[in-house]
Parts: sequence; C-alpha cells; structure tokens
Amino acid sequence: MKKIAVFTSGGDSPGMNACVRAVVRTAIFKGLEVYGIYRGYEGMIEGDIKRMYSYSVSNIIQRGGTVLKSARSMEFKTPEGRKKAYDNLVAHGIEGIVAIGGDGTFTGAKIFQEEFGIPTVGCPGTIDNDIYGTDYTIGFDTAVNTALAAIDKIRDTAAAHDRIFFIEVMGRDAGFIAVDCGIGGGAEFVMVPETKTDLSMVVKSLKNLRKSKSSSIVVVAEGDEEGNAEAIMQKVKEKINDKEKDFKVTTLGHIQRGGSPTAKDRVLGSLCGMAAVEGLLEGRMNCMAGVMNQEIVYTPFGDCIGKEKPLNKEHLKLMEILSI
Amino acid sequence: MKKIAVFTSGGDSPGMNACVRAVVRTAIFKGLEVYGIYRGYEGMIEGDIKRMYSYSVSNIIQRGGTVLKSARSMEFKTPEGRKKAYDNLVAHGIEGIVAIGGDGTFTGAKIFQEEFGIPTVGCPGTIDNDIYGTDYTIGFDTAVNTALAAIDKIRDTAAAHDRIFFIEVMGRDAGFIAVDCGIGGGAEFVMVPETKTDLSMVVKSLKNLRKSKSSSIVVVAEGDEEGNAEAIMQKVKEKINDKEKDFKVTTLGHIQRGGSPTAKDRVLGSLCGMAAVEGLLEGRMNCMAGVMNQEIVYTPFGDCIGKEKPLNKEHLKLMEILSI
Amino acid sequence: MKKIAVFTSGGDSPGMNACVRAVVRTAIFKGLEVYGIYRGYEGMIEGDIKRMYSYSVSNIIQRGGTVLKSARSMEFKTPEGRKKAYDNLVAHGIEGIVAIGGDGTFTGAKIFQEEFGIPTVGCPGTIDNDIYGTDYTIGFDTAVNTALAAIDKIRDTAAAHDRIFFIEVMGRDAGFIAVDCGIGGGAEFVMVPETKTDLSMVVKSLKNLRKSKSSSIVVVAEGDEEGNAEAIMQKVKEKINDKEKDFKVTTLGHIQRGGSPTAKDRVLGSLCGMAAVEGLLEGRMNCMAGVMNQEIVYTPFGDCIGKEKPLNKEHLKLMEILSI
Amino acid sequence: MKKIAVFTSGGDSPGMNACVRAVVRTAIFKGLEVYGIYRGYEGMIEGDIKRMYSYSVSNIIQRGGTVLKSARSMEFKTPEGRKKAYDNLVAHGIEGIVAIGGDGTFTGAKIFQEEFGIPTVGCPGTIDNDIYGTDYTIGFDTAVNTALAAIDKIRDTAAAHDRIFFIEVMGRDAGFIAVDCGIGGGAEFVMVPETKTDLSMVVKSLKNLRKSKSSSIVVVAEGDEEGNAEAIMQKVKEKINDKEKDFKVTTLGHIQRGGSPTAKDRVLGSLCGMAAVEGLLEGRMNCMAGVMNQEIVYTPFGDCIGKEKPLNKEHLKLMEILSI
Repeated sequence: MKKIAVFTSGGDSPGMNACVRAVVRTAIFKGLEVYGIYRGYEGMIEGDIKRMYSYSVSNIIQRGGTVLKSARSMEFKTPEGRKKAYDNLVAHGIEGIVAIGGDGTFTGAKIFQEEFGIPTVGCPGTIDNDIYGTDYTIGFDTAVNTALAAIDKIRDTAAAHDRIFFIEVMGRDAGFIAVDCGIGGGAEFVMVPETKTDLSMVVKSLKNLRKSKSSSIVVVAEGDEEGNAEAIMQKVKEKINDKEKDFKVTTLGHIQRGGSPTAKDRVLGSLCGMAAVEGLLEGRMNCMAGVMNQEIVYTPFGDCIGKEKPLNKEHLKLMEILSI
Repeated sequence: MKKIAVFTSGGDSPGMNACVRAVVRTAIFKGLEVYGIYRGYEGMIEGDIKRMYSYSVSNIIQRGGTVLKSARSMEFKTPEGRKKAYDNLVAHGIEGIVAIGGDGTFTGAKIFQEEFGIPTVGCPGTIDNDIYGTDYTIGFDTAVNTALAAIDKIRDTAAAHDRIFFIEVMGRDAGFIAVDCGIGGGAEFVMVPETKTDLSMVVKSLKNLRKSKSSSIVVVAEGDEEGNAEAIMQKVKEKINDKEKDFKVTTLGHIQRGGSPTAKDRVLGSLCGMAAVEGLLEGRMNCMAGVMNQEIVYTPFGDCIGKEKPLNKEHLKLMEILSI
Repeated sequence: MKKIAVFTSGGDSPGMNACVRAVVRTAIFKGLEVYGIYRGYEGMIEGDIKRMYSYSVSNIIQRGGTVLKSARSMEFKTPEGRKKAYDNLVAHGIEGIVAIGGDGTFTGAKIFQEEFGIPTVGCPGTIDNDIYGTDYTIGFDTAVNTALAAIDKIRDTAAAHDRIFFIEVMGRDAGFIAVDCGIGGGAEFVMVPETKTDLSMVVKSLKNLRKSKSSSIVVVAEGDEEGNAEAIMQKVKEKINDKEKDFKVTTLGHIQRGGSPTAKDRVLGSLCGMAAVEGLLEGRMNCMAGVMNQEIVYTPFGDCIGKEKPLNKEHLKLMEILSI
Repeated sequence: MKKIAVFTSGGDSPGMNACVRAVVRTAIFKGLEVYGIYRGYEGMIEGDIKRMYSYSVSNIIQRGGTVLKSARSMEFKTPEGRKKAYDNLVAHGIEGIVAIGGDGTFTGAKIFQEEFGIPTVGCPGTIDNDIYGTDYTIGFDTAVNTALAAIDKIRDTAAAHDRIFFIEVMGRDAGFIAVDCGIGGGAEFVMVPETKTDLSMVVKSLKNLRKSKSSSIVVVAEGDEEGNAEAIMQKVKEKINDKEKDFKVTTLGHIQRGGSPTAKDRVLGSLCGMAAVEGLLEGRMNCMAGVMNQEIVYTPFGDCIGKEKPLNKEHLKLMEILSI
C-alpha cells in the first residue's frame, strides 16, 4: 500500500480534526502518500481530493468542526454514484481509505468495499456515543461537557427564580449524553429513549420536591419516547396544575456539535486515526478502529452497525440515588 | 442612616452577586447594619429579611444567579401589598434601600418611595443593557460572551456542513446583545428591534454569498419585528427556494442569564453597589447608580425608565462593513 | 452499620465535591446517618465532625476544591494522634469511613484500620492519576483539560512570535498529565519521570524543526529526572546556542488543582462515592473503590499504594508519531 | 490613496486578528487594495508583504495571536533598516499604513513617518492597557478574564487548604490588569507599580485576617516596586514568621497573552481597525485610533507615547472597601 485517503462524513463532531491529523501524520511517518477527500462521499464522487502533508494538519487539533468538511450524499446510495467515486479513487491511485463518521458512514463504506474491494477502516466520529466497538466515540466527551456547562448556567438562573427547567440535549436514538449530563449536572430526572419514562412518577416527585428544593432540572434526550422537552414539559405542567410553579424549556441544539475538543476527544481521535492507518497496513479492512478498556480494538463494520450498545447500568443506578 | 437593605428583582443577571457583595461590604465599611431581602418585592411583603455580614457574601463574586433570589410579585402592584412591605421594613428599622434590577424593579421602587418615603437607590441589573443612565448594565457583558461562545461553536458545525444558521439571542426590546454578538461572531446579518429588517436584502445577499462563502450566520434578537429566528428562517427559506441550501435555527435561551460573571460585570457590579451605598449616605434617593464614561453617575429613576438608550452608531456601521 | 463518616485528605482535586455528595446521598438513600469530617485527619483528631444531610451537598457538584477542606496532619503519624481520632469517631458512633484522597491518605487509613478496626473504603482523589486500581483518578481529567486550555493559549502567542516554549505541568512521580497534554496540545516533545529524557535528541530535533515549523511546545512533567522546565530550558538553550531562537518557560502551577470539574470527573467522583458506601455495607474494608474497564472494582489499599501504574504504551507511541 | 498595508508588532494580544480583519474588510469596502506585512518591522525590511482579500481574514476573528505574526526588529532602529523598509513599501505602491501595537510600535511609526512621509495610523494592541488615547487597549479585557479564571481556580485550592496565595499577573509598568483581577477575584490585596506598596500593612492584615478568613489571595503586578510575587511572598513570610501559615506563589505568565478574544476585544479591535482606515482616507497620520467614552478618537502618537494614563480612582477605592 502506497497511497491512502481520509474523509469525514455524517454529522461533524469535535475531535474529527485530531483524527484527520493523526491519519495524515501516521501515514507520512509510515512512508505513505495521503490524500484528503472533501465533503465525504459527495467529494469522492466529484473528485474533490487533495494531497495532504504534515503541515496541512498543523494547528487543527484544537479546532471543532472538520477541515475536510462533511456532507450527506444521495448519489452515493446509487450504484452509478459509487462507480464514479471508485473511478476517482483509482485515478489518484488510492489503495486504502480511512472513513471517519458514524453508522451511516460505515454502512456506505461496507457496501462500497464489498463492491469495489478498496480496503476501508473506520473511526467512530459522532457525538452520540451509540456505536458498538468502542467505549466512547470521538466528540462525545466534548458534547457532554458543552451541554453540562450550559446546564450549570441554567441552574444559576433556575435557582434564582425557583424554576423547573426541562433541558433537551442531543441523542435521537441513545441517551448517553443525557445520562452523563444528568449525573454531572445534578439533575432531578433524566429521560432517555432506552428506558420507559414514567411521567406520573416525575409529576409526583416534582410536587414533593418543592418542599425541600426550590428549583429542579430535568434532562431530556431529544429521542425520548414521550416526546421532546417542550412536549414533555407541557404534559407535566398540565398534570401538576399548580400556578405557583414556573416551568421553562431550553433546547441546547447545535452548540453540542462544535467547540474546541476536550483532552479526551483529542487523544481518542488521535489514537483511532493512528490505529486506522496501522490497521490498513496490517491488511485489515471492513472494520472500525476503536478503544475499549484502554486498548485499541478493531470491530467489523457489521457489528458496529448492528449490535446494540447499552447504557452503563451503574450510571443509571447513580441517577436514581443522587437525585434524592 | 443606620440600617439599610438590599434586594435583587426581575430577571437575574450575572454580576448581581458582585453587586450584593459590594453593597454589604461597603455598608459595613461605613458603619451601617445591612439586611438582605429575599426574592425581591415578594420577600419584602412576606418579611423574608435577614441580617448580612461580611462573610455572608464571601466566595460569591464569581457566581452567576443571585444569592438573594429573585421573583415577580403581583401583590406589590397593589397598595395593600406595598403597605405590608413598608411595615416589614419599619419593623427591621430599615432606613434606606438598594434595589438591583431593571425597568420593572425601578418602577416599583419609584412608586414605593413616593408613597412611603424610604430612600432608594438602584443598580442596573439586567442582561439586556436597555437602561438609560449607564453605559452598560450588570450582566450584559457576560451574556454577550456566553452567546458569542455559543456562536463560535455553531460556526464550527456550520462551516463543516456549509449551512446557514439563524441564531436567536435575548433582547425583547433592545438589540444590544445581538449587535455585539453579530460583530464579535463575524455574522453576516443582525436583526434587531431598533431597525427595520429588510428581508428581501437578506435573501438577495444570502443567494450571492454562496459564491464566496460556504456558511452563514444570521443573529436575530428575540424582539425583532419580523418575528423570532424560526419565523424569520421560514420566510427566508421560502423566498430563497433552493433545496441545496441547508437552513438551521438555534435559540440560545436561558444559558445567557447564567454563568460566572466576566471581569467587566464583577467590576461594574461592585462599582454600582459601592456607589449606591455612598449615594444613600449622601442623601440621594429615587435614582440609579451607573457608570458612564468611566465615572459613577446617578440618574433619576424617571429618566432610567423613560428615556431611550440608542444603539451605538459606530457598531451599526461596523456590521455593514465587516459582513462583506 | 448505622453511621458512617467521609473526609477528604491530601492535595485537593476537582471532583472531590461530587464524590462527597455521592457518599452523603447514597448513605441517606441506604438509611444511614452520615457525618463530614473537616480537614482530613487533622479534623478527625480535633473532633471537627458534623452531621450531613441531603441539602448539605446541594449545588456543590460543579465546584472545585472540597467543601470538607483538606490538610496535612503530622499528629496523625503518631499513635497518640490516631488514638484521639479514634476516640472522636467512637464518640459520634461512627462505624465506617470513606476516605477520599491519594497514596498518603490510604497509607494513613490502612494503619488506622489495622490498629482500631473501623472499616474504611477509599476513593481515588488526586489529579496525578498515579494510583493503582482505577483507570483514572478523580480530578485527573479536569487537570489535563485545564493544562491543555493553557497550552492552547500559549501556542497562540508562541506561533505569533516563533518561540520555543517549555511548559511545566504537575506530576512529581508520574507523567500522565504531561503525556495527555502533549498529545492533546500537539507538543513537539514530552518529558516525564517514567522514561529517560534524551536531551541531545531534543536539541537535534529543535534545530531541525525550525525549517518546517516556526514555533515549538515542549511539555515537561515537574518530576522529570532532567529537572524542572526552567532547568531543562537552560540546558537546551546552551546546547542549541542560537541567538535567533527565542526560549520561554511557563509553569502552570496550582491552576491545575482548581476549577469546575469536567463531566468525567463528576461522574467518576459520583460512581466512586456511591461504590464506597455500597462497599462498606457489603462488609468491605481496607480497600479502594475505583473504576476499571467501565466496571466498579475494589482494590486492597496495599496494592493501591504498592503497585505501579504504567503509562499507556499507545499514548507514548502516539507522541512519537504525531510530533513529526 | 489606493493601496494601504497593515501589520502587527510588539507583544501579541487577543483581538489583533479582529483588528486586522477590520482593516482589510474596511479597506476593500472603501475600494482600496490592502497588503499584509508579516512580522512587523522585520517583515517590512525583508519585503515579507502579501496582498490580502476578504477571504484572507475569514474565520480569524475568534482566534488569539496574530495571523500576521509579530517580531522585534533591531534593524529598524537604524536608518539603513528603515530605508530598506521604505523601498519595499514603495515597490508595492503602498501609500498608507495601519500599525497595530503598543508604545514601541508607535515610536517606530512616528520616526518612520517623519523620515519618509508615508501616513500611518495606529491601533492600540497590547494587553497592558497603558496607552493614552483609548479607554481600553485591544487584548486587555481578554487578559483580565484569563487571569481571573486562573485566580478563580486557585481560590478553590486555596480555600481547601487555608492557604495564602501570591499570584503574579502581567503589567511591567502598569497595574490595570492587577487592579481589575483584584476586584473581580475578590483579592485581599493588590500590589501595583503606580502606588507605594506598604508591606507592613499587608503583614499586619494577613495576621489578622486569619481570624475570620481561612485563605487569602494577593495579586501582584509583575512590575511592583517591591519585586515580583516570589520576592514579595518571601518578605511577607519572614515578617509573619508563623509556621502554621502556608504560602504559595503562582506566576500566570504567557497564558495571559493568548486565547480566544472576548466580545469586548473583538468589538474594540474591529472598531479601531475600521477607524484607522477611515482616518487614513480622511488624511489623518501620525496618530492612533482609539475609543474613549464610546466614541472613536484620534490621538497624536506623541501623546500616546508620552502622556500617562492613570489607574481609575474608583477602582482603587473599591479595592480598599471590598477586601474587608
């Protein structure tokens, strides 16, 4: 293998730049030529591909977003689109690919590799942490800390006014961000897609809470089965039916995707990037490089996409105890 | 004058604690007894009043929110409510008041003082900066920096995906936060209540912008006459009518009210608190202590409430030039 | 077991408050009475012990430092001192202890327990991460992020002036902070106590680096065998002997001990606190509650103190590759 | 005037990039060609000059440091060096200059302009705030907030251990940073070059303080006439001579020069940059564009360099009152 390429795809996450940097520098360290593909599969189809050097990735490790940009590509879902992409890679002499992204990215990579045989190793870049094969995904730690800093600020004003705040964090299919924000933010309740939300218990507790606590924080993952934070607040408000109580909603939104990555995400992004290149050189393909139990591990794309990653049970237990 | 009281009222703002601390310590420094009234006019009516000491305000200067809490009081709008409040103050022997808050707080203080004659000096505590008689209000600088940090994060993800983001910041009646966020955040447009928003020009520019720039930020003050960020985005989206363009909305919300105050807000809060106590001792009343052109000034409550505070024209000019 | 006590000891670390909170609330949740001992062993000897309630630990999870304070106690190293401490615990009816701290804390706890038989479970509270029996210590993640934020700032000015900066981070016996800061901060070199520092290679590389890079960052753990950052800088400067090159030193110092804990440290502190109480109730003693491979584990104090915890080899490899 | 150039010189400060951006975009807005000179006077002599476009300054407003780099030039102090610099400007057809920096920068600019007649307008870029002709310098607000955040962290650990901390902040000739950090950080004492430091009073107070307060913060400007923080701590320690008291020193150092600029510094940098270009077009020269009392003002370089800028008296009074 002489030439490899790297791209980012799907929702961007903090630490993707650290990962791109590690891919580029490891490749150069190992004597490879390395190319950056811009805007994910879209750029692969359009031939938006450039040679990268060590200095191309200087001074980016601390930046949010991705210097390679990201996009969604409908065309890559068609055989014609993938053929165009393949032709562009061949034209550049690219023999291996590092794909940084999440479920969608790996699904595309799996099909592409099976069709055209160019070895691909993935890196888990998503804030949601819902990828099997790695303890944490690149961007998760930053997203949690960003959300937590926001919750800390909201608690200031919640406490000043004795309010009940429903705060919506990202997580369409997974409650990892919500649970860690709930524990770290000292929330009274956390509602996540993985567990049944019992609104009547929440209502009961919020009624009681007022005796000892003056303000309350409820963290809601956007994908909770009872609805988003606004919907849940309305249901709770109706049932509590107490004009004295002051309910507010804040949806944290896209601030959770940006910002300078935390140390954890820079280190994790760097480790996965290094491991992906080493994996390609060892002949690996169709798999993702992740970190489990402090060791680098490679997991087949099929498992990354298909297997479920459950919430940590100790964390769920903590939530129950600490909100007393 | 031997005994004074201090309270916070209306929406809380970062730096209120610095102000409370300065009131308490200046009062003690000057040989006065000082009391804290909890939850603003509500606590005044309910007699929720406690003696404060130097240590009562230790280690609070860096905290958001207000240790004295805040509330809205319907009862204080009635003569009966105000009479109760007066009786409580008399019972504690309180001869002067420092009221930290905004328009509503000063309106209440003005009426109360005219009815019962207890001298009151105000301090401008609100994030909106829309109070005449001070260059800046306590909390404004922190709110702008909080919103700006959020905009910086959003720009990361906006740039990664070539998106157009409409970001709503606080400011129901005033565009101060929006303008400074717009300049500081490198926004393409800023929409504020004070100026007519020309959507057709925005549409035209956003269409053109795509040639040179890949992502755009539009900052919207919540009180813009064209609606909130969501409403404005929908209008713009319809008129641009280009499926390639990706529009997103983020409403920053209550994070702007909390958080550790900036240096500016701690210093300003401290200066106003000190000046309010000194003002009371000099026989001032029915006025607010503010800082203009680096000097402490006292402005009659009537002017604080009634006179308009215009946006800085140089800032508006900057917005036009820098978004090219 | 009906009554337990908790204390913090040794150098404080961010997340200790989260841990105290978890101990208190878990104890109450389990039906125990819980007491706080102030200033570690010193307070135990002086009888500075207070009952704690759920609200005693409200609104502290986000705070640096420790509400129970910390101190070093010479007297506890004497049998007389420990006897006094024991008498105070007996007087309060305390039957179990949670000790939050590091090596020194556990050494004291081990002796005390062996002498007087009160069961003690520890929690790993130190920024240095050098305790066997837990993947991370409480405070490490915050310290790394604080140091990293400082390094990011220094890189701004290093780059503006083409300077070589030697930055000293904490770590008298261990290089964990230095290594993660080096990777995350994009440092050219990291010097740690665990590995032999080859200054001649550093000199050679810094001479060469100038061709492609204009500024350089060298991260030095305070305990490196070649000396502190100032000493190492002087040695390197002499050997390079190039007046064109501009060398600077910054010692980050005690900022690394304070600050609001990161999400990781709040969650880890909470988990360990909960586990310590559960451990006591299960009859455990003379051991520390930590988290390894995402599971709660209990490790005998003897191992925590005596066994070495090596740096992660993948991290060391990364450092070599990424500084090219 | 058709072509102008901009450079940064002296110690870098956060907000310089915002200023460069405003110069470039205002120049283009006004129909001028604009050039960037790299590394200040050094680059002017070496001809390191490049055309700048609107996109050259995209996405830099939020970055610390300066994209134009900075350096000190001995050669510019010689007539030969300045002649070379002039020839390079003539070769590029440059008819006007914006010089961003401090005292040294303006001294050079004044001489150069008097010798060669190319009009120059300055912008006040330095963290020290010690330039006459502007209420604040670009970078001051960020430096104060950075130092304050560090002091907040140190207070956490100071409080946990009942320590007395001497914290050294930047300010060789001026105490502006120290005073605002002292007020904002709730320091017990502030020592600055402008006022005589009375160590015996400090010693006396620190002895007394222990009765009511357990920890203390003393902020020292690096240029205090009693020495740096380490020296002052040693003197105080000797005089107090109490082994129970635990003294520590932290020198914040170069972190104060870097980091993402605050809103204030971004807006101020932008205003000054715009005003400098407008000034050149109005025929101004040999002067600095600053902001006083919320208005743009132009002050002759001679006054900027020669006139003293005193500390704000209200701030000094505050220090005295609030440390009780």
